[in-house]
Amino acid sequence: MANIKEIARQAGVSVSTVSRVLNNHPYVSEEKRNRVMDTIKQLKYARNMNAVHLITGRTMNIAIMLPFVNHVYFSALMEGVGKGALSASYRLILCQTGYSQDKEREALDMLRNREVDGIVVLSSSISPSEIEAYCAYGPIVCCQDAGERQFSSVYINHTEAFRKAIRYLIRKGHRHIGFTVGRMDSPSTEARLIAYREMLEELGEPYRKEWILDRCLDIEDGAAIMERLFVMKERPSALLVTGDHVAAGLIYEAERRGVSIPEELAVIGFDNHPIGRMLGLTTIDNQLLQMGEMAFAILHEHIEGTQTAPVRHELDFELIERASV
Amino acid sequence: MANIKEIARQAGVSVSTVSRVLNNHPYVSEEKRNRVMDTIKQLKYARNMNAVHLITGRTMNIAIMLPFVNHVYFSALMEGVGKGALSASYRLILCQTGYSQDKEREALDMLRNREVDGIVVLSSSISPSEIEAYCAYGPIVCCQDAGERQFSSVYINHTEAFRKAIRYLIRKGHRHIGFTVGRMDSPSTEARLIAYREMLEELGEPYRKEWILDRCLDIEDGAAIMERLFVMKERPSALLVTGDHVAAGLIYEAERRGVSIPEELAVIGFDNHPIGRMLGLTTIDNQLLQMGEMAFAILHEHIEGTQTAPVRHELDFELIERASV
Repeated sequence: MANIKEIARQAGVSVSTVSRVLNNHPYVSEEKRNRVMDTIKQLKYARNMNAVHLITGRTMNIAIMLPFVNHVYFSALMEGVGKGALSASYRLILCQTGYSQDKEREALDMLRNREVDGIVVLSSSISPSEIEAYCAYGPIVCCQDAGERQFSSVYINHTEAFRKAIRYLIRKGHRHIGFTVGRMDSPSTEARLIAYREMLEELGEPYRKEWILDRCLDIEDGAAIMERLFVMKERPSALLVTGDHVAAGLIYEAERRGVSIPEELAVIGFDNHPIGRMLGLTTIDNQLLQMGEMAFAILHEHIEGTQTAPVRHELDFELIERASV
Repeated sequence: MANIKEIARQAGVSVSTVSRVLNNHPYVSEEKRNRVMDTIKQLKYARNMNAVHLITGRTMNIAIMLPFVNHVYFSALMEGVGKGALSASYRLILCQTGYSQDKEREALDMLRNREVDGIVVLSSSISPSEIEAYCAYGPIVCCQDAGERQFSSVYINHTEAFRKAIRYLIRKGHRHIGFTVGRMDSPSTEARLIAYREMLEELGEPYRKEWILDRCLDIEDGAAIMERLFVMKERPSALLVTGDHVAAGLIYEAERRGVSIPEELAVIGFDNHPIGRMLGLTTIDNQLLQMGEMAFAILHEHIEGTQTAPVRHELDFELIERASV
């Protein structure tokens, strides 16, 4: 592989002229620039970008930490982050963790090792305070509400979103309301439980553990919910289903078993995914694409130094009324 | 930020001892190693991995080029590649191109600029011969059949898969068969057209342009197919639908309009996605997860130098009979 010296020799110019051409500096004559470029093409010279990054102190890489790449929720967020990164010429390094805490720490270590200029955390299993310890090494933006922290966050207020959905169900005459979760110990589940417990207190209803349906992540988990409902002595009349794909599985299986929606079971989804639009699903639009784009925009400001203080950005959400309640 | 000299001074050892500890070389006493590690922690020293990569010549990054991150087909492939990369401690750099040829070239340039050790191309708009020109700079694996090339490929024989699906439909009594495509000018569409034209010839049926339904990429495009079918003077009795999500949209919309499947319209999907299992969709399993894993495995062998010649790996496919034909 050719180096700068060789290019200079063949082009009949000085090494510093070659360097100026490579770095797009002015003060090189058009004729010399052309000679250098031609020689570069002839010799198939390629710059070692690791060396360039070492000099500039920028990698133009950002990391994106997420548990699964093959899941609609994270795909939508990833699309948003990717859109921002693409237009700012940043590359996305994908850190798929499967919620392994070691893998999450490895992703954050990339910031410490200066392999990336910043990191976007879509969801993590380690605590916000552990994430905070990495703020010394570079900018971090989380797509979850982590409270007042040294890092930035873009998020939906899940307590408020749940309150809105619950209010809507109560207005429609429901008192027996259950909900599905991806995992019990997530910050968004905790936030939702606040609104849920408030509702129980207000209605004077007991907390029924079996009405909180755990581990509902995809369409097949949704279909399996019907099975779980059928063995209950007392069933909820309405379900808040976190994820339109989970809701789609539930609706499909309900139809198959002749359970009519919303008459026998009302359903509210989350995400406003096209599948829900098709099924006439009432849902909460939590603006995943915008959340991803905003996360990148804030990270970019931190990298550029135009924003130094941590930012907390709460996104709006919208209840979209269709036919499932 | 501390450097090696400062660590050596504070720990009371030589610079070369610090270097040996950082690179896990033997011949450092336990006591000195501990002293160096303690000093590193105290000074919050972090290695500049760009410098390390410059020395080792490896980046431990691979690029993955794909048009869209938010699409089930690519999500499944990405999961497979990610799985392999994760277990080999490689990082994935996501190059979302939207089929822009400039963006595709930028992704391949990362190989030339030594920012990545290799690249997996899930789908591209530039030609295989243009991709081939980048083989001089490092290993490339494509997830499409590109014929005999200087780069490796893992793929499904789409002509054979289509033949199998068509044979099955003919055995079930169909002569009027249409199909959906994502984009007309893709290599997989070309491969499928071979089997399709063979069938027309065999059955003595004319080529009906309107039965090739273009731009069907997601669930909503699938739902829109019914509209397109209704305005046709003569309709196909069976459709080969490339993508279970597209087929799901079609089936849902057919049910809504009272068109019974398979009696009035038979449907075969592709991908064997959970949504198809739920809907009783007959489909071709094209092993996307395995394809992604295999693509990484071959790339890894090329990077490690255990495989230097280009590999062409044809994966099996399977017709899964359910209730939609």
